[in-house]
Amino acid sequence: MSSTAEAIAQTAKAAFETSQLVTAAERVRALHEIRKELEANRDVILTANSEDMAHAEAEVAAGRLASSLVKRLDLRTGDKWDTMLQGVSDIAALPDPTGAVSYARELHDHLELYRVSCPIGALLVIFEARPEVVVNIAALAIKSGNAAILKGGKESARTATELARSIQAALTRTVLPAAFIQTVETRAEVAALLAEDRYIDLVIPRGSNALVRSIQRSTRIAVMGHADGLCAIYLDQSADREKAKRILVDAKTDYPAACNAVETLLVHQSLLETIWLDVAGALLAADVKLLCDGPTLSALTSPAGRATLPLTTHPNFATRVFPAPPEAYTTEHLSLTLAVRTVPSLAAAIAHINEHGSHHTDCIITESTSAGSTFVRGIDSASVFVNASTRFADGFRYGFGAEVGISTGRIHARGPVGLDGLVTYKYILRSKGSEGHIVGEFGREPGKKQYTHQRIQAAELPF
Amino acid sequence: MSSTAEAIAQTAKAAFETSQLVTAAERVRALHEIRKELEANRDVILTANSEDMAHAEAEVAAGRLASSLVKRLDLRTGDKWDTMLQGVSDIAALPDPTGAVSYARELHDHLELYRVSCPIGALLVIFEARPEVVVNIAALAIKSGNAAILKGGKESARTATELARSIQAALTRTVLPAAFIQTVETRAEVAALLAEDRYIDLVIPRGSNALVRSIQRSTRIAVMGHADGLCAIYLDQSADREKAKRILVDAKTDYPAACNAVETLLVHQSLLETIWLDVAGALLAADVKLLCDGPTLSALTSPAGRATLPLTTHPNFATRVFPAPPEAYTTEHLSLTLAVRTVPSLAAAIAHINEHGSHHTDCIITESTSAGSTFVRGIDSASVFVNASTRFADGFRYGFGAEVGISTGRIHARGPVGLDGLVTYKYILRSKGSEGHIVGEFGREPGKKQYTHQRIQAAELPF
Repeated sequence: MSSTAEAIAQTAKAAFETSQLVTAAERVRALHEIRKELEANRDVILTANSEDMAHAEAEVAAGRLASSLVKRLDLRTGDKWDTMLQGVSDIAALPDPTGAVSYARELHDHLELYRVSCPIGALLVIFEARPEVVVNIAALAIKSGNAAILKGGKESARTATELARSIQAALTRTVLPAAFIQTVETRAEVAALLAEDRYIDLVIPRGSNALVRSIQRSTRIAVMGHADGLCAIYLDQSADREKAKRILVDAKTDYPAACNAVETLLVHQSLLETIWLDVAGALLAADVKLLCDGPTLSALTSPAGRATLPLTTHPNFATRVFPAPPEAYTTEHLSLTLAVRTVPSLAAAIAHINEHGSHHTDCIITESTSAGSTFVRGIDSASVFVNASTRFADGFRYGFGAEVGISTGRIHARGPVGLDGLVTYKYILRSKGSEGHIVGEFGREPGKKQYTHQRIQAAELPF
Repeated sequence: MSSTAEAIAQTAKAAFETSQLVTAAERVRALHEIRKELEANRDVILTANSEDMAHAEAEVAAGRLASSLVKRLDLRTGDKWDTMLQGVSDIAALPDPTGAVSYARELHDHLELYRVSCPIGALLVIFEARPEVVVNIAALAIKSGNAAILKGGKESARTATELARSIQAALTRTVLPAAFIQTVETRAEVAALLAEDRYIDLVIPRGSNALVRSIQRSTRIAVMGHADGLCAIYLDQSADREKAKRILVDAKTDYPAACNAVETLLVHQSLLETIWLDVAGALLAADVKLLCDGPTLSALTSPAGRATLPLTTHPNFATRVFPAPPEAYTTEHLSLTLAVRTVPSLAAAIAHINEHGSHHTDCIITESTSAGSTFVRGIDSASVFVNASTRFADGFRYGFGAEVGISTGRIHARGPVGLDGLVTYKYILRSKGSEGHIVGEFGREPGKKQYTHQRIQAAELPF
């Protein structure tokens, strides 16, 4: 197995190396060829997809698979097929992430330095049983110039094989090697590939926390993925009542299983008998279960609280309001459950989030510009919001056009990751001097050359 | 031990988290305080340094230590003390690497997204027995806003302890926690710290390949360092004779033990009886040992070669010219030894370098703009040069002011790494709308809001 994995990894890296001179225009042309080939092979692919579905349904009937998975497998659902094809064209139309100059200096007369974005190398991408992801990831890899080895969930293996066959057939009509995109089918192959750090430059696992952590533990290759999404919203002393209600309900209920759904609500103590009651009412009306600390729970049942808003008579009160156990503030519920805690100050809210959160996405609701400014600087998270739902943390919403995933790491790429997260850079130094340039001519002594470090205006390499 | 390590790592991360609201101006002030405190403690530090020196000299006398190390330990050598202090002021004066906006979009009316640079977190930096590096790395960490744990070579431990004491004393006069910079003294502590991936965000090892590789193998934390420096120079068909001679001699002899010294020379076959002979003569005159493939060796001894340049009678010829063993092209000699190979074309040179090199720094010598353009695009290395010595690959020369090291990784930072390599970014989203912004209002259906993704011009966060 490991010798097969080595061959696959080596082939991917070799495909990457030989593609260095392939232009962005040729990569875009390859994406159009892929779309054409997928359209031509629609029947074969959908037949394979029906086989995957039939097999999955048998597994569901035998109680070995969740029924929700079957729907995700289905490429005929709604406009999923067309959306998949359109995705290839959309990615083709995005700006080229390579070739951009991010630093340029004249080091001395006729000696010019440029830092230019370029692909990373060979990627290993592991994802769930959603066959359209094969096409999406292949398109992102080709657009950014990275060779890729793909492994989808085993329930979609037949469909993935046909999709990969179309992708490779299309690549044979381009200057890119067909092995630029490879697929593997078994977990054993993935395990063996994780040892190929000589050839694979980046692993991108998508899926459960457990999958991501297990991969991080079993490889020396850099891993870009996301583990926990323990997002918090802080109701500041100056929060607006209606914004608070709207944003909390959206952040908790729009898609509770998403990593950017809110899990913790921090309430400034001055709001216990005012805005907190409105927010609690709105959340109860939306069927949210509230795990409350002492002060927030007392406020709901206090005479003042009852006089303001009679929540105790709300039909959901008895079944949805509970005292918070200590672990409530470090649990990613991924359901309609929200942990609520009182804080005495903005500083205490920031300290709570930095200590207990997962540095994914956190939000303040405030009418104070100064509190917003302090919060976005004080919170050490990939995304920090003012008066906007945590659910906005997403590559499409951020304007990246396409998303590889969301990174909770701090190295290389952080937060939603688009094509920019799939490139690195290299430094290009060009001497135009009549003698070339050597280091020995430079120095502090009299008569030696000095570095000038003059800024050069350049968006791309001028030669 | 590991509980101590956990406490050190946790303290570093806590120091980082509590420093989120410390401004760049306050960090600069901390650097000035450190310089003052070092000046005030000059005698104590130099006394500790004398003790380190005396101990090291005894070890040398006993044959347990290389004598070259003793000189590196000495803080009184030349202007080393003043240079160390000036380095603190120089780093203080560099542009702030944090707070810079690299992406800004209006997602919708009154909903603004900013990507802002910010520190990474807690660093673990491991380096050789050069005491001034303690001060240099501490200054880089403070300037970039990262907490750091430092471990220098054990021969400089007494000096390092006194330097760290001054740094921490200075920090008590600032708003930064004194534990922002910590030092550890033993390898066992480092080994235990490498397991603290909950708290430490990045490991930066400086030193031998063996050290870097050993650390990469023993931690799940991201490692930024450099392993091999197997740099090549390609003499293109259109190379200029004088540039070739100057650049080869500089790249090989300016500092042969450096990672950016050239190790392999590729010669276009058309140059065997012309420029190659001049280059070989210049290298022999500089005492360089040449490990040649068949064609380059034959050219030196052929009648035509001897007629052009009588190298065989050069006093160094018999002792410096040898046939190349196969491993010559994958060996980092780090000495006055150069492996030489003939290639039939530019494409073959690129293929050789991508396959056998270490992706550090490679150079083409050419008068053809098109060959230079193809080479810099075709070579997959951190630094790619045209007509300039590989020795230019260095953070100071690139204009970064100060350098953490050179990265041969492709993830996060590549090539010479300055303060820019010590920051990551976070996304800030601000709603200025009267109702705040929720995701549920956006969608494809009629009446839903659409994302606009209009570019915003901003160099820093506007609030």
